[in-house]
Amino acid sequence: MIINIKSNNRTELIDITNKVKKSVPTDFKNGLVYIFSLHTTGAITINENADPAVKTDILKTINKIIPWDDNFKHMEGNSAAHIKTSLFGQSEIVAVEEGELILGRWQDIYFCEFDGPRNRQVYIKLIN
Amino acid sequence: MIINIKSNNRTELIDITNKVKKSVPTDFKNGLVYIFSLHTTGAITINENADPAVKTDILKTINKIIPWDDNFKHMEGNSAAHIKTSLFGQSEIVAVEEGELILGRWQDIYFCEFDGPRNRQVYIKLIN
Amino acid sequence: MIINIKSNNRTELIDITNKVKKSVPTDFKNGLVYIFSLHTTGAITINENADPAVKTDILKTINKIIPWDDNFKHMEGNSAAHIKTSLFGQSEIVAVEEGELILGRWQDIYFCEFDGPRNRQVYIKLIN
Repeated sequence: MIINIKSNNRTELIDITNKVKKSVPTDFKNGLVYIFSLHTTGAITINENADPAVKTDILKTINKIIPWDDNFKHMEGNSAAHIKTSLFGQSEIVAVEEGELILGRWQDIYFCEFDGPRNRQVYIKLIN
Repeated sequence: MIINIKSNNRTELIDITNKVKKSVPTDFKNGLVYIFSLHTTGAITINENADPAVKTDILKTINKIIPWDDNFKHMEGNSAAHIKTSLFGQSEIVAVEEGELILGRWQDIYFCEFDGPRNRQVYIKLIN
Repeated sequence: MIINIKSNNRTELIDITNKVKKSVPTDFKNGLVYIFSLHTTGAITINENADPAVKTDILKTINKIIPWDDNFKHMEGNSAAHIKTSLFGQSEIVAVEEGELILGRWQDIYFCEFDGPRNRQVYIKLIN
């Protein structure tokens, strides 16, 4: 199954928790949900679902550690996005019990846009 | 299943390998163990099980790359911990064969405390 | 199953996509492939499969963020490699449908050597 996402900024954390929940059929009661970014400049992570300032702080910090321009050789000019993607990771796995995603109280699932704005695709697979 | 952990420092790598082993029933001979931190300021990683200096070096380095205070907007003041958690990742998966965890000779499983001291919970799920 | 890899440099990204494909039997049509580095100084990641300059940029940047020498305590002298491994992560999971790995157009699977040259082992397990 594919979740479609549209980003609006060069770097952006987009909450996809509800889209992931909707991709789990009601008769899937127990197992794992595999969530995979089909891109090399966009990652998946899990982080704070309450204060949006956390997203701002995460992006500000990672963009400072890995600046957009740094004499990169890759002609496309987006090497910073490739590096961030490998550090955040292209996939997450979330468990399901009694039909519910097992997440901590403050956890939501995010698509990490590191070279937007773009249309993105996240692949979902259920395992039980 | 939940593993309970108590951390004693703001940042700390806590070896949970034995707790993970104990969470695998003796009749579970083959499959995967999914190990998931239910927190947004604590991660799971796999690293050196021999020289404790490796843990010291890992923490010193990540704390230098992402300092605790950096004009963060998040009012709770622990944005550094959120960022580290996304970089280390909230979960690991370890295989089981013939009832044994498949780890390399020097690998152990760690809970990464990035905003302690706290009581923490790690969720475990078996898949075969 | 074990994939054997030989690295030739201290830090190196080695494409293992074809080796992973070969480790999936032709009658395995649907499920997940778990790919796990059995080492604490070598990781697994997914990234660009086209322009080799991306690999160069990734390594140059991570080696700048985490320099080889930084007053580390670990006597073996390779703490930088341990830290990079925890940041990139020891495992990846890739889905299989109709017998094919589900990867994006630009994605390949890499073993990340952070303390070579060495002979390395990657463990593969199939789950369906």
